[in-house]
Amino acid sequence: MENTTRRLPHKLDFIFRPRSVAVIGATPRKGSIGREILHNLITYEFNGKLFPVNPNHSVIHSIKAYSTILDVPDLVDLAVIVVPRELVLGVVDQCGEKGVKGLVVITAGFKEVGPTGSRLEQQVADRVNHWGMRMIGPNCFGIINSHPDIRLDATFSKVYPKQGKIGFLSQSGALGEAILAQAGEMNLGLSMFASIGNKANISGNDLLEYWKDDPDVEIILMYLENFGNPRHFVSIAREVTKKKPIVAVKSGTTLKGAAAASSHTGSLAGAEVAVDALFEQTGVLRVSSIEELFDVASALARMPVPKGNRVSIVTNAGGPGILATDALISLGMEMPEYSESTKEKIRPNMPPDAPINNPLDLVAGAGPREFKIALEAGIQDDNFDSMLSIFVPPITVDQMKIAEAIVDVKKRFTRPLYACFMGVSWYSQGFELLKENNVPAYIFPESIARSIAKIDKYRRWRDRQEGTLPNFAVDRASVRRIVDESIAAKRQEIIGEQAMALLQAYGVPVASYRYASSAEEAVIAADQVGYPVVLKINTPRILHKTEFGAVKIDLRSGSDVAASWKAMHDRVTAEFGESEPFSVVIQKMLTEGVETAVGMSTDPAFGPLLMFGLGGIYIEIMKDVSFRVNPVTDIDAEEMIESCKGYRLLTGFRGSEPVDLALLKESILRLSMLVTDFEELVEFDVNPFIIASDRGNSAAVDARFIVRLP
Amino acid sequence: MENTTRRLPHKLDFIFRPRSVAVIGATPRKGSIGREILHNLITYEFNGKLFPVNPNHSVIHSIKAYSTILDVPDLVDLAVIVVPRELVLGVVDQCGEKGVKGLVVITAGFKEVGPTGSRLEQQVADRVNHWGMRMIGPNCFGIINSHPDIRLDATFSKVYPKQGKIGFLSQSGALGEAILAQAGEMNLGLSMFASIGNKANISGNDLLEYWKDDPDVEIILMYLENFGNPRHFVSIAREVTKKKPIVAVKSGTTLKGAAAASSHTGSLAGAEVAVDALFEQTGVLRVSSIEELFDVASALARMPVPKGNRVSIVTNAGGPGILATDALISLGMEMPEYSESTKEKIRPNMPPDAPINNPLDLVAGAGPREFKIALEAGIQDDNFDSMLSIFVPPITVDQMKIAEAIVDVKKRFTRPLYACFMGVSWYSQGFELLKENNVPAYIFPESIARSIAKIDKYRRWRDRQEGTLPNFAVDRASVRRIVDESIAAKRQEIIGEQAMALLQAYGVPVASYRYASSAEEAVIAADQVGYPVVLKINTPRILHKTEFGAVKIDLRSGSDVAASWKAMHDRVTAEFGESEPFSVVIQKMLTEGVETAVGMSTDPAFGPLLMFGLGGIYIEIMKDVSFRVNPVTDIDAEEMIESCKGYRLLTGFRGSEPVDLALLKESILRLSMLVTDFEELVEFDVNPFIIASDRGNSAAVDARFIVRLP
Repeated sequence: MENTTRRLPHKLDFIFRPRSVAVIGATPRKGSIGREILHNLITYEFNGKLFPVNPNHSVIHSIKAYSTILDVPDLVDLAVIVVPRELVLGVVDQCGEKGVKGLVVITAGFKEVGPTGSRLEQQVADRVNHWGMRMIGPNCFGIINSHPDIRLDATFSKVYPKQGKIGFLSQSGALGEAILAQAGEMNLGLSMFASIGNKANISGNDLLEYWKDDPDVEIILMYLENFGNPRHFVSIAREVTKKKPIVAVKSGTTLKGAAAASSHTGSLAGAEVAVDALFEQTGVLRVSSIEELFDVASALARMPVPKGNRVSIVTNAGGPGILATDALISLGMEMPEYSESTKEKIRPNMPPDAPINNPLDLVAGAGPREFKIALEAGIQDDNFDSMLSIFVPPITVDQMKIAEAIVDVKKRFTRPLYACFMGVSWYSQGFELLKENNVPAYIFPESIARSIAKIDKYRRWRDRQEGTLPNFAVDRASVRRIVDESIAAKRQEIIGEQAMALLQAYGVPVASYRYASSAEEAVIAADQVGYPVVLKINTPRILHKTEFGAVKIDLRSGSDVAASWKAMHDRVTAEFGESEPFSVVIQKMLTEGVETAVGMSTDPAFGPLLMFGLGGIYIEIMKDVSFRVNPVTDIDAEEMIESCKGYRLLTGFRGSEPVDLALLKESILRLSMLVTDFEELVEFDVNPFIIASDRGNSAAVDARFIVRLP
Repeated sequence: MENTTRRLPHKLDFIFRPRSVAVIGATPRKGSIGREILHNLITYEFNGKLFPVNPNHSVIHSIKAYSTILDVPDLVDLAVIVVPRELVLGVVDQCGEKGVKGLVVITAGFKEVGPTGSRLEQQVADRVNHWGMRMIGPNCFGIINSHPDIRLDATFSKVYPKQGKIGFLSQSGALGEAILAQAGEMNLGLSMFASIGNKANISGNDLLEYWKDDPDVEIILMYLENFGNPRHFVSIAREVTKKKPIVAVKSGTTLKGAAAASSHTGSLAGAEVAVDALFEQTGVLRVSSIEELFDVASALARMPVPKGNRVSIVTNAGGPGILATDALISLGMEMPEYSESTKEKIRPNMPPDAPINNPLDLVAGAGPREFKIALEAGIQDDNFDSMLSIFVPPITVDQMKIAEAIVDVKKRFTRPLYACFMGVSWYSQGFELLKENNVPAYIFPESIARSIAKIDKYRRWRDRQEGTLPNFAVDRASVRRIVDESIAAKRQEIIGEQAMALLQAYGVPVASYRYASSAEEAVIAADQVGYPVVLKINTPRILHKTEFGAVKIDLRSGSDVAASWKAMHDRVTAEFGESEPFSVVIQKMLTEGVETAVGMSTDPAFGPLLMFGLGGIYIEIMKDVSFRVNPVTDIDAEEMIESCKGYRLLTGFRGSEPVDLALLKESILRLSMLVTDFEELVEFDVNPFIIASDRGNSAAVDARFIVRLP
């Protein structure tokens, strides 16, 4: 490879840094995709050899054309395929025979159109594998590498991006044109662009891996519609985000209609929950729109990541200053005051008696001189990590001069500086000057505030400790036995004694309990576990114990227990008849501590998702729960606990003692290990899990596991 | 008045529809505000007489100038004042003498610069009142009326808006230019624009009242930094929004740092809470940015309000269709499927076997014909109330033709149609065509989704029933006595027996209780109120009873009560010594129902704010509360209850019976009445207020009122 920007050639270099490209299906017909791709390669001066392939033309666009790829006399690194669908398979085989290294298949009509297309796509993928080639697509918009040594535009886009440090991965071909146009509007450079289409061979994960160590790509933007292999994504994305930011729009299909209330983890864990968990655990910044994607990208591409969350604002208009402050503070940023020395520098520049606050309002008459003094003083103030300059052009001030002042300060200092020019056109002179000089420039103060906050989130991720997966000594054999028994008996559900034993085997504390089949046995059991006790029906016929009235709590004496036993027995007899087997569980009631719940459900794509939440109605009504994709590290477990709104209940609230957070974290990690060790477990709910200030009063009170039956 | 658009002249007509305008302080000096305003009046062809006033010039801009306003030979309706600050007072008096009806004072340097300016402003306002004139400003950007009969641009803006139906009120002068520029970018017409500056005479409320019945103003946009008279705003805005929508950006000053946790209503009710409550109760649509303000305005100005929340989407790109669907569903809109007859009309237009879903993906090759068939069929489908057309221009399709198809459908049908053209420039031909033809057009699908949802909120407000303020028979005399006693004793706090009596006087049920000063008395009291009981310390020394352990609940026997009395007595003696007076309250424990809380705090500007929330930690940790500005109507009270996340706990959850919602609502309304009747009450907390399925088990358990001491 002649390319100097990488040391070791990578298999995908044959695609993104080819020395020679064949366009199979190139035509001279205007408006056809085969023509546009060839046209783009020529127009943007691809720095290598170009071979149009078309049996019906000997010259296309003044370049010699070949009947088939086999007729091309040189080596071909990359073939871009634009032939009709029914010809693709044959062309792929010819490429293999020819020794082509990489393919970009633009042609559509595969998996996206139904089963026939799907089968054809599989055949194509098989042939690509057979020949040891790599392929992007089919059904894609093409790829771009804007490096001056390469200049590859193998798309049919009307826009060629300027060189930059952004790698853009789009799962939607239709969005490709819009993405490139938007980058152009923002004067934002891309290093590489890839529309990955149906991902029959090269996946988004492959591309992330390729870009991970690529010095040309410093920021990765993604538009995703689904994850091919989310578990692989976790490991790759975690590595990438420690080096360079990933910002993603993930569209999903919102469920039409609200989900029914339930404490079962399965019903709380929608697909979106899994996606959010995945992004949280991998440090990927999720944004909600293409607009925000570019807003964040512009700030990341044009400025270093600020060292902290303290922002100063200089403005010539009070209102927008307040709007930006509102947005920043509500997103968790800080706006401390200017230091005394900065105030002294700014003072002579201000109207007498005008206050010097943050946001600093220079008032409407402020010109380039006033802006420059304030920006220079502010950007050097160590009370801040970044600075935002807001300007609303009054008629008396030349916006070009303000833009020049901002650019001048930007060039002389390294601390990040962002600009908002309100009410100007995207193409106004001053705004253009900012963009050209790589000052992140915005029309609306809220947009930049949102971007600054996202980037701060990335900083915190990048700087946080790596988590570890602890390894506990556990009793795998017991769990294996319980699970196997359940499978052998074709019982999906593991409840009661078995469920408790399962927890105990993995070192999760459980509340002591006894079974009883008569009032007398119940009283003896209660004496053994110690008062107060809880009495629960022990029959699988009753799923919703609380609704049935099948749980009696806080029984403080033998007579209480006997009376409850009798009431419940009568209720069951009335409902199911005398022959219904009837027994109860007598369990020590934990009177201290906080009710929490730990659960797990399995997403078809993401695998097991662990859930933590404050128990009872916190989960069911407030949905105050957090999810993480299994396995969770110790840091993940901490974040799961701390990200619940109810976290404050755990740290000592209103005179109660703080709970044993270490035990809680350990229990989550032990359950995560259980899930990892036993793939047969597809769902569980440990609910309630009472966590008190000490281990002795903390325990799982009830649990339920679901196994996958073969 | 010659203006034909209004029947009755209004006092503000002399300002917004003047027959003659004097510009006092007009100069020929380029770049000066006095020149720019005169220049704008001339350039945009003010349809009336124009009199520049300046002692140093006899002609300005080819128009005869006068030394003073008194020298002007004609009647003057409106004087725009741009003279230096120190001359304003004299000029105002001259205007009064001359019989000028209205003033717009552009000159700055008044209240906004400190006490001296503030005093001068008061003097100016006094003189304006003295002469019976009305004044906008001082310290403002001016006003505009774009009606062709008027054509008044008395601002120093570089942009003159096209005629339209929007009235724009801006409290920020600095934003004026930005607002007019943004309207221009969007090709959005304004009928009137007013920068109201320091509001020394004409307030925002005055303007709302003026625009309420003005046929030229169909939509009102506001940028507000504060409310002068929020209570007056409530009554005006409620009337206006029944006729025309108001959309507002309200900037605030976010508190730097999180508020401490507390169940006291006062600490939960920040200024922003009051603003939100105010907007909720008046049907004003609050948006979070200027960008969103214009997005919503464009949809409102260009389309009727949809009749419901059901949206159909037609797109040529799957991804953006999903993004829009996500956004719409998450904002509470519905996306039902197309009717069978619509599907039949669309079917021949689609690739074979392609699914016809909502969103309808026409795929990338779709041209104007495909779009037109789908849009025509969809817009007539009664399964929907509005339609969104999303287009991402591929190279093979002419975006102009698609825009023409959309415009054509828009013109022939009345059901609202919105358009999203992704990845095009704001100035691309197709996009311009949409704007010119009044199709609300957006670059990003999320922006239009957000706007559609806001407008749907307006529809629900406009169509909802008017609430009433019920009048209950209450015992005012008792409350008067308790409040007066407290004031006489200089006691700010009313607690215990007095607080309970106060609730009873207004018909709010309270839990029965007795006082006791010995263990024996406590047991007798418990026998009287009935077991189980709660025992609480009755001493003002202990503020946080729970932390102190000064509340014992669920005592079920005389021995429980006696033991608790003794334990508490020992605790108090240990803490405060033997001499501490010690008594307890024995209260019937309500074992059924849900713990709620009703509170009130007084905002300096907004007056009393009522709060409702689920009790205990729901309030303190989850902040799951709702606020309304007092007085609340029956509809307000219902919305307060229903807007809490925990509402589902009240409607029968997990087998429990629904609570007596009528009693809960009535209690809130009775407390609202209490607040209205006694202005001395500035804060209260009725917490917990237990609400069960029947009146007998529902009651306030504790309450605390704060009176304002003179």
